[in-house]
Amino acid sequence: MNSIRENLIALAEKSRSAAGFLVSATTGMKDAALLAAADALEKNCDLILKENARDLALSDENGVRPAMIDRLTLNRTRIEGIAESMRKVSRLPDPTGLSDGWTRPNGLYIERRRVPIGVIGIIYEARPNVTADAASLCLKSGNAVILRGGKDALYSNIAIVRVINEALASCGFPDGCVSLIESPDRAYTNELLTLDGYVDLVIPRGGKGLISAVKKNATVPVIETGAGNCHLYVHSDANIEMATNILINAKTQRPSVCNAIETLLVHRDIASSFLPVASLALKEEGHGTRLLGCPETRRILGNEIAPATEEDYMTEFDDYILAVKVVDSLEEAVEHINRYNTHHSEIIVTDSIDASRRFSTAVDAACVYTNASSRFTDGEEFGFGAEIGISTQKLHARGPMGLNELTSIKYFISGQGQVR
Amino acid sequence: MNSIRENLIALAEKSRSAAGFLVSATTGMKDAALLAAADALEKNCDLILKENARDLALSDENGVRPAMIDRLTLNRTRIEGIAESMRKVSRLPDPTGLSDGWTRPNGLYIERRRVPIGVIGIIYEARPNVTADAASLCLKSGNAVILRGGKDALYSNIAIVRVINEALASCGFPDGCVSLIESPDRAYTNELLTLDGYVDLVIPRGGKGLISAVKKNATVPVIETGAGNCHLYVHSDANIEMATNILINAKTQRPSVCNAIETLLVHRDIASSFLPVASLALKEEGHGTRLLGCPETRRILGNEIAPATEEDYMTEFDDYILAVKVVDSLEEAVEHINRYNTHHSEIIVTDSIDASRRFSTAVDAACVYTNASSRFTDGEEFGFGAEIGISTQKLHARGPMGLNELTSIKYFISGQGQVR
Repeated sequence: MNSIRENLIALAEKSRSAAGFLVSATTGMKDAALLAAADALEKNCDLILKENARDLALSDENGVRPAMIDRLTLNRTRIEGIAESMRKVSRLPDPTGLSDGWTRPNGLYIERRRVPIGVIGIIYEARPNVTADAASLCLKSGNAVILRGGKDALYSNIAIVRVINEALASCGFPDGCVSLIESPDRAYTNELLTLDGYVDLVIPRGGKGLISAVKKNATVPVIETGAGNCHLYVHSDANIEMATNILINAKTQRPSVCNAIETLLVHRDIASSFLPVASLALKEEGHGTRLLGCPETRRILGNEIAPATEEDYMTEFDDYILAVKVVDSLEEAVEHINRYNTHHSEIIVTDSIDASRRFSTAVDAACVYTNASSRFTDGEEFGFGAEIGISTQKLHARGPMGLNELTSIKYFISGQGQVR
Repeated sequence: MNSIRENLIALAEKSRSAAGFLVSATTGMKDAALLAAADALEKNCDLILKENARDLALSDENGVRPAMIDRLTLNRTRIEGIAESMRKVSRLPDPTGLSDGWTRPNGLYIERRRVPIGVIGIIYEARPNVTADAASLCLKSGNAVILRGGKDALYSNIAIVRVINEALASCGFPDGCVSLIESPDRAYTNELLTLDGYVDLVIPRGGKGLISAVKKNATVPVIETGAGNCHLYVHSDANIEMATNILINAKTQRPSVCNAIETLLVHRDIASSFLPVASLALKEEGHGTRLLGCPETRRILGNEIAPATEEDYMTEFDDYILAVKVVDSLEEAVEHINRYNTHHSEIIVTDSIDASRRFSTAVDAACVYTNASSRFTDGEEFGFGAEIGISTQKLHARGPMGLNELTSIKYFISGQGQVR
């Protein structure tokens, strides 16, 4: 066994033991610890900003892109925001506890309870607010967490986790409830992904590259999150104004996020009236969204629009780029979506209940919207109060994951000596 | 791509297309198909028995063990039993449909529905009744199924699946709802386990070897089932008669199954009064259960009892063998269990509410029993009406899996043009 694995196992053994404490911690204890940690973050604002400045200086030296530098930057307001998020999690209902229970004819009483999963690994990229967010959601749901942040935010993350841990200790919580892998060595990530028996679940939060690397290398259970090749389908009977508003919002309000759309599918019967309106609206909206069109789209909008390739339909642009395709039927739209999508969020705009039902049933995705923007696929927007990620898989969790999705179930059966 | 993979993809493409049909099939249609299949199995009893006779003759030639031959053998009564099970599944509630729904302040209506998972692969061993059971549970929950049975039951399985498919076709169901891999070539199993994009879930049903091979080779999602290294802990205040009854039942009523116990843990304060009673009861019970004891057990019961090794504590004997260990405390019992168990079912016998609570909370298992036999870990016994397996993992499903566990969730969101 290499020394990196040994170090990580030593860390994970503390996590397991902390998980044993957290499973019996009361809601009141957990909430008090969250509030103490929030206060401590605000009180230690200067310390955290000093460490954040080290990360920023190094990133600047290393030529990190400005957009990344912005995501990495903390200030007093952002730290207060992080603390406020922790307080908000403390006010959410505890997801653990009795789910349901029933008595069998032989008198056995079967209780099904939601329980913490145990030890959860979270692998994420630059933003240091994820450190506190992930810690508070895991803590509230009674899980010990092992955090693996990006190396660009290392000093900030170390500072945040130390401050949180001091607060937890002052509330009587043992070491290991919140841990951070403090070495930037990438080998730690791979070891974390194969820590069967110590880690119950790994959740990657980040770009496509991170998620597929985690999926490929993990032997512990993983929840796949995030990748979003989402579509808007405009049916033949769509309200053109509504379809245009939704298009503008779903494509341009924040193109870098997973619930933004990448491809517009338009029914042939409405294409020649809708596409010119949509194209003009995108132009007026001012972000210079570039269209890539199928032959019929180019016939309608003109050949200055570049042709869309097979490759384009597969791409999550995360940018002001939109592929456009005219389809002959709702069924063709569904077929296109099920071929290229990442099972995240899909939209139909239609006035027809039947079209909405057929589309929603047949499309293979976590969230299917009728007459609304896919930008609502989000734990807060769904009313879950918080979000640890958006699952694009079908097992355990699908769609926005809140506190409930960080729990498992366990059966507690009591009898008076029953045998079979 | 090899031709085995090509064949399997051709089969799985039919399954995917059938899954698209099944997701919209009504409960009435699915139930009618199950009843038609049950009738057809009874009507074609002679044909099935003829094919079963071929399997039996081959197994006899190949020197298959008598216990396996018994599990493989069909007769009219057993076929009627299989048909009756299908009728029973038709009477269970449909697990798909609305789960809950809520309206957000912005007017978005969010519906969470239980939906079929899609295409499920089931890999199992000799018993041909699993063929019909798995098919009916998948069909009722709206999933297409790809069956991979043991080669000893190949002719029986082919006959059963053909009869079921004729019945499904007569009810207007397309090809591919129920498929069987008809080649005994083992390469098919490995290809099935890596059919990402075609197969949504694989469930192995069988012994430890099968399950660990599936876990190791699969890239599609797997639900781990079955392995059961289960324990009975007799606390210091236990009712000795109750503890003895539960011991006899959990160890000897059917030692080959996963919910039988393998190790007895006894609190030091009750060991010298309980162990002689338990040992005598096991003798009188007549199966010649062999004890393997820790030093304290051997001090109490005598050195004719063989010493228990570390290896023994790790072993699922599936036989009339019982490891016995005296522990100093409930905490030591929990520690032993969490070190050696397979997260299946664990028992405490105690009169103390506090001891029950501490044990049940701390033990890491799907099912924890207080004062009852672990033999009740079973979908039927839990009241689920049927069972596809017992999950020993924490994600998606834990404990007995019924129809609900063969579904995922999907969000249906409807609006009036909402954007963010």
